[in-house]
Amino acid sequence: MTHAMNRQVRLIARPSGIPEAEHFEIAEVPVPDPAEGQVVVRNVYLAVDPAMRGWVSAVRNYSEPVALGSVMRAFAAGRVEASRHPGFQPGDWITGMFGWQDYAVVDGGSIDRKIVETDLPMSTSLGVLGTNGMTAYFGLLDVGQPKAGETVVVSTAAGAVGSCVGQIARIRGCRTVGITGGQKKTELCRNEFGYDAAIDYKSEDLDVALAAACPDGVNVYFDNTAGKISDTVIKHLAVGGRVVICGTASVSSWEVLPEGPRVERHLLVNRARMQGFLIFDYASRYPEALQQLSKWVRSGMMRYREEIIEGLEHAPGAIAGLYRGENLGRRLIRIASE
Amino acid sequence: MTHAMNRQVRLIARPSGIPEAEHFEIAEVPVPDPAEGQVVVRNVYLAVDPAMRGWVSAVRNYSEPVALGSVMRAFAAGRVEASRHPGFQPGDWITGMFGWQDYAVVDGGSIDRKIVETDLPMSTSLGVLGTNGMTAYFGLLDVGQPKAGETVVVSTAAGAVGSCVGQIARIRGCRTVGITGGQKKTELCRNEFGYDAAIDYKSEDLDVALAAACPDGVNVYFDNTAGKISDTVIKHLAVGGRVVICGTASVSSWEVLPEGPRVERHLLVNRARMQGFLIFDYASRYPEALQQLSKWVRSGMMRYREEIIEGLEHAPGAIAGLYRGENLGRRLIRIASE
Repeated sequence: MTHAMNRQVRLIARPSGIPEAEHFEIAEVPVPDPAEGQVVVRNVYLAVDPAMRGWVSAVRNYSEPVALGSVMRAFAAGRVEASRHPGFQPGDWITGMFGWQDYAVVDGGSIDRKIVETDLPMSTSLGVLGTNGMTAYFGLLDVGQPKAGETVVVSTAAGAVGSCVGQIARIRGCRTVGITGGQKKTELCRNEFGYDAAIDYKSEDLDVALAAACPDGVNVYFDNTAGKISDTVIKHLAVGGRVVICGTASVSSWEVLPEGPRVERHLLVNRARMQGFLIFDYASRYPEALQQLSKWVRSGMMRYREEIIEGLEHAPGAIAGLYRGENLGRRLIRIASE
Repeated sequence: MTHAMNRQVRLIARPSGIPEAEHFEIAEVPVPDPAEGQVVVRNVYLAVDPAMRGWVSAVRNYSEPVALGSVMRAFAAGRVEASRHPGFQPGDWITGMFGWQDYAVVDGGSIDRKIVETDLPMSTSLGVLGTNGMTAYFGLLDVGQPKAGETVVVSTAAGAVGSCVGQIARIRGCRTVGITGGQKKTELCRNEFGYDAAIDYKSEDLDVALAAACPDGVNVYFDNTAGKISDTVIKHLAVGGRVVICGTASVSSWEVLPEGPRVERHLLVNRARMQGFLIFDYASRYPEALQQLSKWVRSGMMRYREEIIEGLEHAPGAIAGLYRGENLGRRLIRIASE
């Protein structure tokens, strides 16, 4: 096993905007032997995340840029193949920042968690029971603080995070309004994720549609876009409104800071707030979120969609598609069988 | 008394930006007799506030626009001349939204409070012991939530609100950095209001000066400007930073929303927040703030500056000067002797 070959997707050029296939190469190296305290994990699912654009950018961020020539940073889920760590046994399912590669040799500190929901598909550990679900959980509940009866608007509403946000808000008794692009996704929002209203920003006048869908204004806006969609939603904030800044998908590059309408007047007049958060700050509370989310998933109160692409060779080109909005569900690369 | 004449400053034209003298007229009418439950107040001090620009604008705001032809809305402080209200006696000092006029006939609901700090000048009830001081108190402490040892940056640092913010932050053990325009005001900041550092944005490179003054970043930014100054300060936010949106002095009109660099990335990377507030929402806690502020004033821990202009006829032109930054201290119009 330890002499298996390991295919790695490496960053070889730094994109100024959205990473494309040409910014990566695939190399093959032997899998090193684990040292004391390390485990060898056979990755089964690799995540494809919008945040990857930030990770490969040289611009100051919440984490160090991925170094040129090194394995692309990525969340992954897999099976322990060999262990020299007392907390992990061969056969355990684990998840962590294992990178876009077949195998990772990691120490305990690099492992996010041992997956205990083995009755559910392993892939959920990278979506609804991973950073997506927990981002929705903490971002909505802790930062957004919705109350029953309030109106919660979600951008990228059918996406991996957005769909969880909408469903948690509904479970908490809120009126939920999803903004997404295209008829397929608005149908997903209504029929699969239970939004009270879904707006197709590509074919509708968002301003008019929001006024109709949110007659009492927007109490919580969970934002994954940071662009024109947000500029419009912010005009509909209710007094005391909260804008949760989760992502900036609509901005293709931050190297030159894009301009937009100033928000101060809206925040002042409505005594409203905008607040950013990073899921990593909630690490000590992951177990709480996972317990709640897995209950909701098992009971059918919370649904999820996955779009699984087969084969490591498709990873390099898979980020850009997220920004084109082509995926219907959490995008994962499967590189081995569960 | 009730047959005295009452000079009134009335709004006669709606400015698109900053109100100037030409947007007002002075009229003279008899003082009406008070009805049951009303008092007649002889105004002594009239306030001149940056917020007046918003009050006379037709654009949606937190209060109804001042109607054309009516007395200009203004905070004022004065002496009760006649009372048909059981809570007020002739000779009482009161403050409230009495307008730019010699006399106001008001009911109890229009009176903010009876001034109990009669050992201090009546003028303080419109400044350090009025909305300015309370805006600083609640905005800094409740919205900004500074902790001892943190760095608090204040824009319009020598102004009526800003000078209180800086001093409260210092009293609470923060490092205080004031941003203001001109050498006179930076000297006021350092020598009178006790800022640890004062930056003259007109003659210094703000970005460079902030980096030097805030080596650990900005934990709280109390903003009265909403313009280029803010754009620069936000780049220096520390992780977990709070931006308190108090005013938008640098923006001359909101009828077309001005553009500026997007803030989402800063908020996300730093897990920071921007939050607006209005002092009126804290009405139930005014007594708490006034008790604390008056203690600080009496003990000399908190200083204040006033710039008193003599004569009602100078009110109409007095707003624009605030936006030119020409005043050194809280601008008031005195129209009678204390």
